[in-house]
Amino acid sequence: MSTLPVVTTVRELQAQADAERAAGRRIALVPTMGALHAGHLSLVTEARRQADVVWMSIFVNPTQFNDPKDFEGYPVDMKRDLALAAEHGVDLVFSPLAAELYPEGAQTWVEVSELAEPLCGASRPGHFRGVTTVVAKLLLAARPHVAVFGQKDFQQCAVIRRMASDLGFGVEIVAAPTVREPDGLALSSRNVHLGPEARRQALALVRALDAAEQAVAQGERGRDALLAGVHAEIGQASLAQIDYAEIRDPETLEISPGQLAGPSLLALAVNFAADGPGQGAPVRLIDNRVLTPGPAA
Amino acid sequence: MSTLPVVTTVRELQAQADAERAAGRRIALVPTMGALHAGHLSLVTEARRQADVVWMSIFVNPTQFNDPKDFEGYPVDMKRDLALAAEHGVDLVFSPLAAELYPEGAQTWVEVSELAEPLCGASRPGHFRGVTTVVAKLLLAARPHVAVFGQKDFQQCAVIRRMASDLGFGVEIVAAPTVREPDGLALSSRNVHLGPEARRQALALVRALDAAEQAVAQGERGRDALLAGVHAEIGQASLAQIDYAEIRDPETLEISPGQLAGPSLLALAVNFAADGPGQGAPVRLIDNRVLTPGPAA
Repeated sequence: MSTLPVVTTVRELQAQADAERAAGRRIALVPTMGALHAGHLSLVTEARRQADVVWMSIFVNPTQFNDPKDFEGYPVDMKRDLALAAEHGVDLVFSPLAAELYPEGAQTWVEVSELAEPLCGASRPGHFRGVTTVVAKLLLAARPHVAVFGQKDFQQCAVIRRMASDLGFGVEIVAAPTVREPDGLALSSRNVHLGPEARRQALALVRALDAAEQAVAQGERGRDALLAGVHAEIGQASLAQIDYAEIRDPETLEISPGQLAGPSLLALAVNFAADGPGQGAPVRLIDNRVLTPGPAA
Repeated sequence: MSTLPVVTTVRELQAQADAERAAGRRIALVPTMGALHAGHLSLVTEARRQADVVWMSIFVNPTQFNDPKDFEGYPVDMKRDLALAAEHGVDLVFSPLAAELYPEGAQTWVEVSELAEPLCGASRPGHFRGVTTVVAKLLLAARPHVAVFGQKDFQQCAVIRRMASDLGFGVEIVAAPTVREPDGLALSSRNVHLGPEARRQALALVRALDAAEQAVAQGERGRDALLAGVHAEIGQASLAQIDYAEIRDPETLEISPGQLAGPSLLALAVNFAADGPGQGAPVRLIDNRVLTPGPAA
Protein backbone atom coordinates (compact mmCIF):
# COMPACT_ATOMS: atom_id res chain seq x y z
CA MET A 1 0.00 0.00 0.00
CA SER A 2 1.49 3.32 -1.05
CA THR A 3 1.40 6.38 1.15
CA LEU A 4 -0.73 9.29 0.04
CA PRO A 5 1.50 12.39 -0.30
CA VAL A 6 0.18 15.40 1.60
CA VAL A 7 1.47 18.79 0.44
CA THR A 8 0.97 21.82 2.67
CA THR A 9 2.66 24.71 0.83
CA VAL A 10 1.77 26.49 -2.40
CA ARG A 11 5.39 26.52 -3.47
CA GLU A 12 5.74 22.76 -3.22
CA LEU A 13 2.47 22.16 -5.04
CA GLN A 14 3.50 24.49 -7.88
CA ALA A 15 6.78 22.58 -8.21
CA GLN A 16 4.85 19.31 -8.41
CA ALA A 17 2.49 20.82 -10.98
CA ASP A 18 5.41 21.97 -13.12
CA ALA A 19 6.91 18.48 -12.93
CA GLU A 20 3.66 16.76 -13.92
CA ARG A 21 3.11 19.19 -16.76
CA ALA A 22 6.70 18.87 -17.97
CA ALA A 23 6.15 15.10 -18.08
CA GLY A 24 3.07 15.66 -20.23
CA ARG A 25 0.62 14.46 -17.61
CA ARG A 26 -2.85 15.94 -17.22
CA ILE A 27 -3.78 17.14 -13.72
CA ALA A 28 -7.31 17.10 -12.31
CA LEU A 29 -8.04 18.97 -9.10
CA VAL A 30 -10.95 18.15 -6.78
CA PRO A 31 -11.33 21.04 -4.34
CA THR A 32 -13.07 20.09 -1.10
CA MET A 33 -13.52 21.34 2.43
CA GLY A 34 -13.04 17.80 3.76
CA ALA A 35 -15.82 15.95 5.64
CA LEU A 36 -15.73 13.68 2.61
CA HIS A 37 -18.79 11.74 1.59
CA ALA A 38 -19.76 9.69 -1.47
CA GLY A 39 -20.48 12.92 -3.35
CA HIS A 40 -16.85 14.01 -3.09
CA LEU A 41 -15.68 10.54 -3.99
CA SER A 42 -17.78 10.60 -7.15
CA LEU A 43 -15.86 13.76 -8.09
CA VAL A 44 -12.65 11.77 -7.71
CA THR A 45 -14.03 9.14 -10.08
CA GLU A 46 -14.93 11.83 -12.60
CA ALA A 47 -11.49 13.44 -12.18
CA ARG A 48 -9.84 10.10 -12.89
CA ARG A 49 -11.79 9.90 -16.17
CA GLN A 50 -10.52 13.36 -17.10
CA ALA A 51 -6.83 13.26 -16.22
CA ASP A 52 -3.71 11.26 -15.46
CA VAL A 53 -3.22 12.46 -11.92
CA VAL A 54 -5.95 13.33 -9.42
CA TRP A 55 -5.23 15.86 -6.72
CA MET A 56 -7.62 16.74 -3.93
CA SER A 57 -7.46 19.88 -1.87
CA ILE A 58 -8.86 19.77 1.65
CA PHE A 59 -9.22 23.26 3.08
CA VAL A 60 -12.04 24.67 5.16
CA ASN A 61 -11.99 28.14 3.63
CA PRO A 62 -12.80 30.72 6.32
CA THR A 63 -13.67 33.52 3.88
CA GLN A 64 -16.67 31.76 2.34
CA PHE A 65 -18.55 31.40 5.60
CA ASN A 66 -20.80 34.38 6.06
CA ASP A 67 -21.78 32.92 9.46
CA PRO A 68 -18.83 32.37 11.86
CA LYS A 69 -20.85 29.72 13.75
CA ASP A 70 -21.22 27.76 10.51
CA PHE A 71 -17.43 27.88 10.07
CA GLU A 72 -16.72 26.79 13.64
CA GLY A 73 -19.23 23.97 13.44
CA TYR A 74 -18.03 22.68 10.07
CA PRO A 75 -17.13 18.99 10.53
CA VAL A 76 -13.39 18.19 10.36
CA ASP A 77 -11.81 14.73 10.46
CA MET A 78 -8.57 14.86 8.51
CA LYS A 79 -7.46 11.34 9.38
CA ARG A 80 -10.68 9.83 8.05
CA ASP A 81 -10.58 12.11 4.97
CA LEU A 82 -7.03 11.08 4.10
CA ALA A 83 -7.91 7.41 4.46
CA LEU A 84 -10.92 7.84 2.17
CA ALA A 85 -8.90 9.81 -0.38
CA ALA A 86 -6.17 7.16 -0.44
CA GLU A 87 -8.72 4.36 -0.72
CA HIS A 88 -10.32 6.07 -3.73
CA GLY A 89 -7.07 6.53 -5.60
CA VAL A 90 -6.33 10.20 -5.01
CA ASP A 91 -2.68 10.76 -5.94
CA LEU A 92 -1.96 13.78 -3.75
CA VAL A 93 -3.73 15.85 -1.13
CA PHE A 94 -3.12 19.58 -0.76
CA SER A 95 -3.96 20.56 2.78
CA PRO A 96 -2.56 24.00 3.63
CA LEU A 97 -2.94 25.90 6.88
CA ALA A 98 -5.11 29.00 6.62
CA ALA A 99 -2.02 31.23 6.90
CA GLU A 100 -0.59 29.61 3.76
CA LEU A 101 -3.51 30.76 1.58
CA TYR A 102 -4.25 33.90 3.60
CA PRO A 103 -0.89 35.22 4.82
CA GLU A 104 -0.82 38.15 7.22
CA GLY A 105 -2.01 41.30 5.50
CA ALA A 106 -3.71 39.41 2.64
CA GLN A 107 -6.24 41.77 1.11
CA THR A 108 -6.83 40.58 -2.45
CA TRP A 109 -10.26 39.42 -3.55
CA VAL A 110 -11.46 37.76 -6.72
CA GLU A 111 -15.07 38.56 -7.35
CA VAL A 112 -17.66 37.66 -9.97
CA SER A 113 -20.47 40.18 -10.21
CA GLU A 114 -23.85 39.39 -11.82
CA LEU A 115 -23.77 35.58 -11.57
CA ALA A 116 -22.91 35.74 -7.89
CA GLU A 117 -25.69 38.12 -6.93
CA PRO A 118 -28.93 36.08 -6.75
CA LEU A 119 -29.80 32.85 -4.91
CA CYS A 120 -27.02 31.86 -2.48
CA GLY A 121 -25.26 35.14 -3.27
CA ALA A 122 -28.24 37.06 -1.90
CA SER A 123 -28.71 34.78 1.12
CA ARG A 124 -25.05 34.58 2.05
CA PRO A 125 -23.34 37.95 1.56
CA GLY A 126 -19.65 37.55 0.77
CA HIS A 127 -19.93 33.77 0.30
CA PHE A 128 -19.06 33.66 -3.40
CA ARG A 129 -16.32 36.25 -3.03
CA GLY A 130 -14.70 33.85 -0.57
CA VAL A 131 -15.26 30.93 -2.93
CA THR A 132 -13.83 32.59 -6.03
CA THR A 133 -10.88 33.98 -4.09
CA VAL A 134 -9.87 30.62 -2.66
CA VAL A 135 -10.50 28.75 -5.91
CA ALA A 136 -8.30 31.26 -7.78
CA LYS A 137 -5.55 30.58 -5.23
CA LEU A 138 -6.02 26.82 -5.53
CA LEU A 139 -5.90 26.97 -9.34
CA LEU A 140 -2.71 29.03 -9.23
CA ALA A 141 -1.19 26.56 -6.77
CA ALA A 142 -2.18 23.32 -8.50
CA ARG A 143 -2.24 24.50 -12.14
CA PRO A 144 -4.71 21.76 -13.07
CA HIS A 145 -5.97 21.09 -16.58
CA VAL A 146 -9.40 20.34 -15.17
CA ALA A 147 -11.16 21.00 -11.87
CA VAL A 148 -14.22 19.02 -10.78
CA PHE A 149 -17.07 20.38 -8.67
CA GLY A 150 -20.46 19.00 -7.66
CA GLN A 151 -23.55 20.10 -9.53
CA LYS A 152 -25.44 20.26 -6.23
CA ASP A 153 -23.76 23.65 -5.94
CA PHE A 154 -25.08 24.71 -9.33
CA GLN A 155 -24.52 28.42 -8.89
CA GLN A 156 -21.03 27.81 -7.52
CA CYS A 157 -20.16 25.88 -10.68
CA ALA A 158 -21.47 28.71 -12.86
CA VAL A 159 -19.60 31.37 -10.89
CA ILE A 160 -16.33 29.44 -10.88
CA ARG A 161 -16.59 28.60 -14.57
CA ARG A 162 -17.07 32.30 -15.33
CA MET A 163 -14.15 33.30 -13.10
CA ALA A 164 -11.79 30.75 -14.62
CA SER A 165 -12.75 31.77 -18.13
CA ASP A 166 -12.67 35.55 -17.50
CA LEU A 167 -9.22 35.51 -15.93
CA GLY A 168 -7.82 33.01 -18.43
CA PHE A 169 -6.86 30.14 -16.15
CA GLY A 170 -6.95 27.75 -19.09
CA VAL A 171 -8.68 25.15 -16.91
CA GLU A 172 -11.81 23.20 -17.72
CA ILE A 173 -14.47 23.35 -14.99
CA VAL A 174 -16.46 20.12 -14.84
CA ALA A 175 -19.73 19.81 -12.92
CA ALA A 176 -20.40 16.24 -11.80
CA PRO A 177 -23.95 14.98 -11.08
CA THR A 178 -25.33 15.20 -7.55
CA VAL A 179 -25.00 12.02 -5.50
CA ARG A 180 -27.99 11.13 -3.34
CA GLU A 181 -28.88 8.93 -0.39
CA PRO A 182 -31.03 5.93 -1.32
CA ASP A 183 -34.13 7.90 -0.33
CA GLY A 184 -33.15 10.83 -2.57
CA LEU A 185 -31.61 13.37 -0.19
CA ALA A 186 -28.64 15.09 -1.84
CA LEU A 187 -25.39 14.30 -0.02
CA SER A 188 -23.99 17.21 1.95
CA SER A 189 -21.48 17.54 4.75
CA ARG A 190 -24.20 19.43 6.59
CA ASN A 191 -26.60 16.47 6.63
CA VAL A 192 -24.93 15.13 9.79
CA HIS A 193 -26.36 18.12 11.66
CA LEU A 194 -29.97 17.15 10.89
CA GLY A 195 -31.92 15.64 13.77
CA PRO A 196 -33.96 12.49 12.98
CA GLU A 197 -37.21 14.34 12.31
CA ALA A 198 -35.49 17.07 10.23
CA ARG A 199 -33.69 14.32 8.31
CA ARG A 200 -37.05 12.77 7.47
CA GLN A 201 -38.58 16.10 6.47
CA ALA A 202 -35.52 17.05 4.39
CA LEU A 203 -36.90 14.81 1.66
CA ALA A 204 -39.31 17.66 0.91
CA LEU A 205 -36.58 19.19 -1.31
CA VAL A 206 -36.22 16.26 -3.66
CA ARG A 207 -40.00 15.69 -3.62
CA ALA A 208 -40.51 19.30 -4.70
CA LEU A 209 -37.94 18.92 -7.50
CA ASP A 210 -39.52 15.66 -8.65
CA ALA A 211 -43.00 17.19 -8.62
CA ALA A 212 -41.87 20.17 -10.69
CA GLU A 213 -40.14 17.91 -13.19
CA GLN A 214 -43.25 15.80 -13.49
CA ALA A 215 -45.46 18.84 -13.92
CA VAL A 216 -43.22 20.10 -16.74
CA ALA A 217 -43.33 16.64 -18.35
CA GLN A 218 -47.13 16.87 -18.22
CA GLY A 219 -47.09 20.18 -20.02
CA GLU A 220 -46.97 22.81 -17.28
CA ARG A 221 -44.94 25.83 -18.49
CA GLY A 222 -46.03 28.46 -15.99
CA ARG A 223 -43.14 29.56 -13.80
CA ASP A 224 -45.32 30.75 -10.95
CA ALA A 225 -47.51 27.66 -11.04
CA LEU A 226 -44.41 25.49 -10.74
CA LEU A 227 -43.13 27.55 -7.82
CA ALA A 228 -46.51 27.36 -6.13
CA GLY A 229 -46.19 23.58 -6.33
CA VAL A 230 -42.75 23.78 -4.74
CA HIS A 231 -44.06 25.93 -1.89
CA ALA A 232 -46.98 23.56 -1.33
CA GLU A 233 -44.68 20.54 -1.17
CA ILE A 234 -42.17 22.11 1.19
CA GLY A 235 -44.94 23.73 3.22
CA GLN A 236 -45.88 20.26 4.40
CA ALA A 237 -42.59 19.98 6.27
CA SER A 238 -43.20 21.65 9.62
CA LEU A 239 -39.49 22.21 10.36
CA ALA A 240 -38.77 23.69 6.92
CA GLN A 241 -38.44 27.35 6.12
CA ILE A 242 -37.77 28.27 2.50
CA ASP A 243 -34.78 30.56 2.00
CA TYR A 244 -35.35 30.74 -1.75
CA ALA A 245 -37.19 28.80 -4.44
CA GLU A 246 -36.58 30.25 -7.87
CA ILE A 247 -36.57 29.35 -11.53
CA ARG A 248 -33.75 30.94 -13.49
CA ASP A 249 -31.81 30.67 -16.74
CA PRO A 250 -29.11 27.99 -16.21
CA GLU A 251 -26.52 30.08 -18.08
CA THR A 252 -27.11 33.66 -16.99
CA LEU A 253 -29.04 32.88 -13.75
CA GLU A 254 -31.52 35.57 -14.74
CA ILE A 255 -35.11 34.97 -13.66
CA SER A 256 -36.95 32.85 -16.22
CA PRO A 257 -39.87 34.30 -18.17
CA GLY A 258 -43.40 33.58 -16.95
CA GLN A 259 -43.71 30.76 -19.48
CA LEU A 260 -40.68 28.47 -19.58
CA ALA A 261 -39.30 28.28 -23.12
CA GLY A 262 -36.15 26.20 -22.64
CA PRO A 263 -34.03 24.50 -20.00
CA SER A 264 -34.63 26.26 -16.69
CA LEU A 265 -32.92 25.90 -13.35
CA LEU A 266 -35.16 25.25 -10.36
CA ALA A 267 -32.98 26.11 -7.37
CA LEU A 268 -33.96 25.60 -3.73
CA ALA A 269 -32.48 26.55 -0.39
CA VAL A 270 -34.36 25.50 2.72
CA ASN A 271 -33.55 25.90 6.39
CA PHE A 272 -34.51 23.03 8.65
CA ALA A 273 -35.05 23.82 12.29
CA ALA A 274 -33.65 21.53 14.93
CA ASP A 275 -36.04 18.77 16.01
CA GLY A 276 -36.77 20.39 19.33
CA PRO A 277 -35.89 23.41 21.43
CA GLY A 278 -32.22 23.71 22.31
CA GLN A 279 -31.29 21.17 19.65
CA GLY A 280 -28.88 23.43 17.76
CA ALA A 281 -28.85 25.85 14.85
CA PRO A 282 -31.01 25.38 11.76
CA VAL A 283 -29.44 23.42 8.93
CA ARG A 284 -29.47 24.99 5.47
CA LEU A 285 -29.84 22.56 2.59
CA ILE A 286 -29.74 23.29 -1.13
CA ASP A 287 -30.72 21.27 -4.15
CA ASN A 288 -31.59 21.95 -7.78
CA ARG A 289 -32.88 20.47 -11.00
CA VAL A 290 -32.70 21.67 -14.58
CA LEU A 291 -36.27 21.49 -15.91
CA THR A 292 -36.37 20.77 -19.62
CA PRO A 293 -39.67 21.49 -21.35
CA GLY A 294 -40.15 19.20 -24.33
CA PRO A 295 -41.16 20.59 -27.73
CA ALA A 296 -44.61 22.12 -27.87
CA ALA A 297 -47.26 19.46 -28.60
CA MET B 1 17.19 42.11 -38.75
CA SER B 2 14.75 39.68 -37.15
CA THR B 3 11.04 40.30 -37.05
CA LEU B 4 9.46 40.96 -33.67
CA PRO B 5 6.75 38.34 -33.04
CA VAL B 6 3.38 39.84 -32.11
CA VAL B 7 0.98 37.53 -30.27
CA THR B 8 -2.67 38.52 -29.99
CA THR B 9 -4.34 35.62 -28.14
CA VAL B 10 -4.03 34.39 -24.57
CA ARG B 11 -3.96 30.79 -25.72
CA GLU B 12 -0.97 31.34 -28.00
CA LEU B 13 0.92 33.26 -25.35
CA GLN B 14 0.30 30.51 -22.78
CA ALA B 15 1.65 27.95 -25.23
CA GLN B 16 4.77 30.08 -25.76
CA ALA B 17 5.17 30.47 -22.00
CA ASP B 18 4.92 26.72 -21.49
CA ALA B 19 7.56 26.20 -24.19
CA GLU B 20 9.96 28.75 -22.68
CA ARG B 21 9.49 27.29 -19.21
CA ALA B 22 9.93 23.75 -20.43
CA ALA B 23 13.22 24.87 -22.00
CA GLY B 24 14.28 26.25 -18.62
CA ARG B 25 14.24 29.87 -19.72
CA ARG B 26 13.24 32.70 -17.42
CA ILE B 27 10.51 35.04 -18.70
CA ALA B 28 10.27 38.73 -17.82
CA LEU B 29 7.10 40.63 -18.68
CA VAL B 30 6.95 44.39 -19.14
CA PRO B 31 3.28 45.40 -19.11
CA THR B 32 2.61 48.70 -20.90
CA MET B 33 -0.23 50.64 -22.43
CA GLY B 34 1.97 51.61 -25.38
CA ALA B 35 2.91 55.21 -26.13
CA LEU B 36 6.40 54.04 -25.27
CA HIS B 37 8.98 56.45 -23.96
CA ALA B 38 12.43 56.10 -22.41
CA GLY B 39 10.78 55.14 -19.09
CA HIS B 40 9.27 52.01 -20.63
CA LEU B 41 12.51 51.21 -22.41
CA SER B 42 14.40 51.36 -19.11
CA LEU B 43 11.98 48.67 -17.88
CA VAL B 44 13.02 46.54 -20.85
CA THR B 45 16.66 46.99 -19.85
CA GLU B 46 15.84 45.97 -16.28
CA ALA B 47 13.81 42.98 -17.57
CA ARG B 48 16.80 41.87 -19.64
CA ARG B 49 18.94 41.88 -16.49
CA GLN B 50 16.35 39.68 -14.76
CA ALA B 51 15.50 37.06 -17.36
CA ASP B 52 16.37 35.20 -20.55
CA VAL B 53 13.43 36.37 -22.61
CA VAL B 54 11.73 39.76 -22.43
CA TRP B 55 8.08 40.05 -23.36
CA MET B 56 6.20 43.32 -23.55
CA SER B 57 2.44 43.65 -23.45
CA ILE B 58 0.88 46.63 -25.17
CA PHE B 59 -2.75 47.02 -24.16
CA VAL B 60 -4.67 50.18 -23.38
CA ASN B 61 -6.79 48.71 -20.60
CA PRO B 62 -10.25 50.28 -20.68
CA THR B 63 -11.21 49.23 -17.14
CA GLN B 64 -8.53 51.28 -15.39
CA PHE B 65 -9.67 54.61 -16.81
CA ASN B 66 -12.12 56.20 -14.42
CA ASP B 67 -12.56 59.01 -16.96
CA PRO B 68 -13.74 57.88 -20.43
CA LYS B 69 -12.25 61.02 -22.00
CA ASP B 70 -8.85 60.06 -20.60
CA PHE B 71 -9.22 56.63 -22.24
CA GLU B 72 -10.29 58.06 -25.59
CA GLY B 73 -7.46 60.58 -25.56
CA TYR B 74 -4.77 58.09 -24.57
CA PRO B 75 -2.03 58.28 -27.23
CA VAL B 76 -1.77 55.20 -29.49
CA ASP B 77 0.88 54.57 -32.14
CA MET B 78 1.36 50.83 -32.47
CA LYS B 79 3.73 51.00 -35.43
CA ARG B 80 6.11 53.30 -33.59
CA ASP B 81 5.80 51.21 -30.38
CA LEU B 82 6.66 47.99 -32.20
CA ALA B 83 9.67 49.60 -33.84
CA LEU B 84 10.91 50.87 -30.47
CA ALA B 85 10.33 47.51 -28.81
CA ALA B 86 12.23 45.69 -31.56
CA GLU B 87 15.05 48.21 -31.44
CA HIS B 88 15.43 47.70 -27.68
CA GLY B 89 15.58 43.92 -27.89
CA VAL B 90 12.09 42.92 -26.82
CA ASP B 91 11.63 39.26 -27.82
CA LEU B 92 7.85 39.21 -28.17
CA VAL B 93 4.95 41.65 -27.96
CA PHE B 94 1.55 40.63 -26.64
CA SER B 95 -1.02 42.95 -28.11
CA PRO B 96 -4.55 41.56 -27.67
CA LEU B 97 -7.79 43.17 -28.71
CA ALA B 98 -9.99 44.30 -25.82
CA ALA B 99 -12.41 41.43 -26.50
CA GLU B 100 -9.60 38.93 -25.93
CA LEU B 101 -9.02 40.05 -22.33
CA TYR B 102 -12.62 41.11 -21.71
CA PRO B 103 -14.83 38.67 -23.65
CA GLU B 104 -18.55 39.30 -23.80
CA GLY B 105 -20.14 38.81 -20.41
CA ALA B 106 -16.83 39.13 -18.54
CA GLN B 107 -17.66 40.03 -14.95
CA THR B 108 -14.71 38.94 -12.82
CA TRP B 109 -12.70 41.48 -10.87
CA VAL B 110 -9.49 41.18 -8.93
CA GLU B 111 -9.35 43.74 -6.19
CA VAL B 112 -6.87 44.75 -3.50
CA SER B 113 -8.49 46.51 -0.57
CA GLU B 114 -6.52 48.67 1.91
CA LEU B 115 -3.47 49.45 -0.24
CA ALA B 116 -5.66 50.58 -3.13
CA GLU B 117 -7.80 52.96 -1.08
CA PRO B 118 -5.74 56.15 -0.54
CA LEU B 119 -3.88 58.41 -2.99
CA CYS B 120 -4.69 57.51 -6.62
CA GLY B 121 -7.27 55.03 -5.34
CA ALA B 122 -9.20 57.85 -3.72
CA SER B 123 -8.81 60.22 -6.68
CA ARG B 124 -9.62 57.66 -9.36
CA PRO B 125 -12.44 55.35 -8.20
CA GLY B 126 -12.15 51.92 -9.82
CA HIS B 127 -8.71 52.61 -11.25
CA PHE B 128 -6.78 50.02 -9.27
CA ARG B 129 -9.52 47.43 -9.65
CA GLY B 130 -8.99 47.77 -13.40
CA VAL B 131 -5.22 47.58 -12.99
CA THR B 132 -5.19 44.48 -10.77
CA THR B 133 -7.77 42.74 -12.94
CA VAL B 134 -5.83 43.26 -16.16
CA VAL B 135 -2.47 42.47 -14.58
CA ALA B 136 -3.88 39.21 -13.18
CA LYS B 137 -5.01 38.32 -16.71
CA LEU B 138 -1.63 39.27 -18.18
CA LEU B 139 0.23 37.21 -15.57
CA LEU B 140 -1.99 34.20 -16.29
CA ALA B 141 -1.41 34.64 -20.01
CA ALA B 142 2.36 35.19 -19.96
CA ARG B 143 3.27 33.17 -16.83
CA PRO B 144 6.40 35.28 -16.31
CA HIS B 145 8.98 34.68 -13.59
CA VAL B 146 9.33 38.42 -13.14
CA ALA B 147 7.27 41.45 -14.12
CA VAL B 148 8.76 44.94 -14.27
CA PHE B 149 6.88 48.16 -13.49
CA GLY B 150 7.96 51.76 -13.10
CA GLN B 151 8.43 53.21 -9.63
CA LYS B 152 6.83 56.44 -10.80
CA ASP B 153 3.58 54.55 -10.15
CA PHE B 154 4.67 53.73 -6.61
CA GLN B 155 1.24 52.78 -5.31
CA GLN B 156 0.56 50.67 -8.40
CA CYS B 157 3.74 48.69 -7.70
CA ALA B 158 2.68 48.15 -4.09
CA VAL B 159 -0.85 47.09 -5.06
CA ILE B 160 0.34 44.70 -7.77
CA ARG B 161 3.03 43.20 -5.54
CA ARG B 162 0.38 42.52 -2.89
CA MET B 163 -2.03 41.02 -5.43
CA ALA B 164 0.60 38.74 -6.94
CA SER B 165 1.72 37.58 -3.52
CA ASP B 166 -1.79 37.11 -2.07
CA LEU B 167 -3.05 35.03 -4.98
CA GLY B 168 0.20 33.06 -5.29
CA PHE B 169 1.27 33.94 -8.82
CA GLY B 170 4.84 32.97 -8.00
CA VAL B 171 6.10 36.01 -9.88
CA GLU B 172 8.58 38.60 -8.67
CA ILE B 173 7.37 42.20 -9.05
CA VAL B 174 10.27 44.54 -9.75
CA ALA B 175 9.95 48.32 -9.49
CA ALA B 176 12.45 50.13 -11.72
CA PRO B 177 13.60 53.71 -10.98
CA THR B 178 11.74 56.63 -12.53
CA VAL B 179 13.29 57.99 -15.70
CA ARG B 180 13.31 61.78 -16.05
CA GLU B 181 13.73 64.44 -18.71
CA PRO B 182 17.05 66.33 -18.47
CA ASP B 183 15.25 69.07 -16.49
CA GLY B 184 13.84 66.54 -14.00
CA LEU B 185 10.25 65.99 -15.15
CA ALA B 186 9.27 62.34 -14.72
CA LEU B 187 8.54 60.70 -18.08
CA SER B 188 4.87 60.00 -18.68
CA SER B 189 2.80 59.25 -21.74
CA ARG B 190 0.62 62.13 -20.58
CA ASN B 191 3.41 64.73 -20.85
CA VAL B 192 2.64 65.19 -24.57
CA HIS B 193 -0.67 66.78 -23.55
CA LEU B 194 1.05 69.59 -21.62
CA GLY B 195 1.07 73.00 -23.31
CA PRO B 196 4.40 74.89 -23.32
CA GLU B 197 3.62 76.90 -20.18
CA ALA B 198 2.19 73.89 -18.30
CA ARG B 199 5.27 71.90 -19.33
CA ARG B 200 7.47 74.59 -17.79
CA GLN B 201 5.40 74.75 -14.60
CA ALA B 202 5.28 70.93 -14.32
CA LEU B 203 8.79 71.12 -12.87
CA ALA B 204 7.10 72.22 -9.64
CA LEU B 205 6.62 68.51 -8.80
CA VAL B 206 10.27 67.56 -8.87
CA ARG B 207 11.23 70.85 -7.19
CA ALA B 208 8.82 70.04 -4.37
CA LEU B 209 10.26 66.54 -4.00
CA ASP B 210 13.83 67.90 -4.04
CA ALA B 211 12.99 70.55 -1.45
CA ALA B 212 11.41 67.98 0.88
CA GLU B 213 14.39 65.68 0.52
CA GLN B 214 16.74 68.54 1.27
CA ALA B 215 14.70 69.59 4.29
CA VAL B 216 14.83 66.04 5.67
CA ALA B 217 18.60 65.96 5.07
CA GLN B 218 18.84 69.17 7.09
CA GLY B 219 16.99 67.61 10.00
CA GLU B 220 13.33 68.39 9.39
CA ARG B 221 11.16 65.51 10.68
CA GLY B 222 7.77 67.21 10.89
CA ARG B 223 5.32 65.68 8.43
CA ASP B 224 3.11 68.75 8.25
CA ALA B 225 6.05 71.13 7.88
CA LEU B 226 7.31 69.08 4.94
CA LEU B 227 3.87 69.10 3.34
CA ALA B 228 3.59 72.85 3.87
CA GLY B 229 6.83 73.19 1.91
CA VAL B 230 5.36 71.08 -0.88
CA HIS B 231 2.23 73.23 -1.04
CA ALA B 232 4.33 76.41 -1.08
CA GLU B 233 6.48 75.12 -3.93
CA ILE B 234 3.59 73.92 -6.06
CA GLY B 235 1.54 76.98 -5.17
CA GLN B 236 3.95 79.04 -7.23
CA ALA B 237 2.77 77.29 -10.39
CA SER B 238 -0.32 79.18 -11.49
CA LEU B 239 -1.66 76.35 -13.66
CA ALA B 240 -1.20 73.71 -10.97
CA GLN B 241 -3.91 72.34 -8.72
CA ILE B 242 -2.86 69.76 -6.15
CA ASP B 243 -4.91 66.55 -6.22
CA TYR B 244 -3.02 65.10 -3.28
CA ALA B 245 0.25 65.63 -1.48
CA GLU B 246 0.76 63.07 1.27
CA ILE B 247 3.44 61.38 3.31
CA ARG B 248 2.77 57.72 3.96
CA ASP B 249 4.44 54.49 5.01
CA PRO B 250 6.05 52.98 1.88
CA GLU B 251 4.93 49.46 2.84
CA THR B 252 1.43 49.85 4.22
CA LEU B 253 0.63 53.25 2.65
CA GLU B 254 -0.77 54.33 6.00
CA ILE B 255 -0.35 58.01 6.86
CA SER B 256 3.00 58.64 8.48
CA PRO B 257 3.20 59.83 12.08
CA GLY B 258 3.63 63.54 12.76
CA GLN B 259 7.37 63.05 13.21
CA LEU B 260 8.95 60.89 10.51
CA ALA B 261 10.77 57.97 12.10
CA GLY B 262 11.85 55.95 9.06
CA PRO B 263 11.64 55.83 5.27
CA SER B 264 8.50 57.70 4.23
CA LEU B 265 6.80 58.04 0.87
CA LEU B 266 6.08 61.56 -0.33
CA ALA B 267 3.50 61.11 -3.07
CA LEU B 268 2.16 63.88 -5.28
CA ALA B 269 -0.60 64.15 -7.86
CA VAL B 270 -1.10 67.53 -9.51
CA ASN B 271 -3.48 68.64 -12.24
CA PHE B 272 -2.11 71.14 -14.73
CA ALA B 273 -4.62 73.31 -16.52
CA ALA B 274 -4.28 73.93 -20.22
CA ASP B 275 -2.24 77.00 -21.08
CA GLY B 276 -5.25 78.99 -22.15
CA PRO B 277 -9.01 78.77 -22.49
CA GLY B 278 -10.19 76.07 -24.90
CA GLN B 279 -6.76 74.42 -24.85
CA GLY B 280 -7.98 71.01 -23.71
CA ALA B 281 -8.51 69.05 -20.48
CA PRO B 282 -6.19 69.36 -17.49
CA VAL B 283 -3.26 66.95 -17.39
CA ARG B 284 -2.76 64.94 -14.22
CA LEU B 285 0.85 64.22 -13.30
CA ILE B 286 2.16 62.08 -10.45
CA ASP B 287 5.58 61.75 -8.90
CA ASN B 288 7.03 60.50 -5.63
CA ARG B 289 10.14 60.22 -3.51
CA VAL B 290 10.99 58.03 -0.55
CA LEU B 291 12.31 60.37 2.14
CA THR B 292 14.88 58.70 4.38
CA PRO B 293 15.61 60.46 7.64
CA GLY B 294 19.18 59.79 8.80
CA PRO B 295 19.90 58.65 12.35
CA ALA B 296 19.16 61.22 15.06
CA ALA B 297 22.14 63.51 15.65
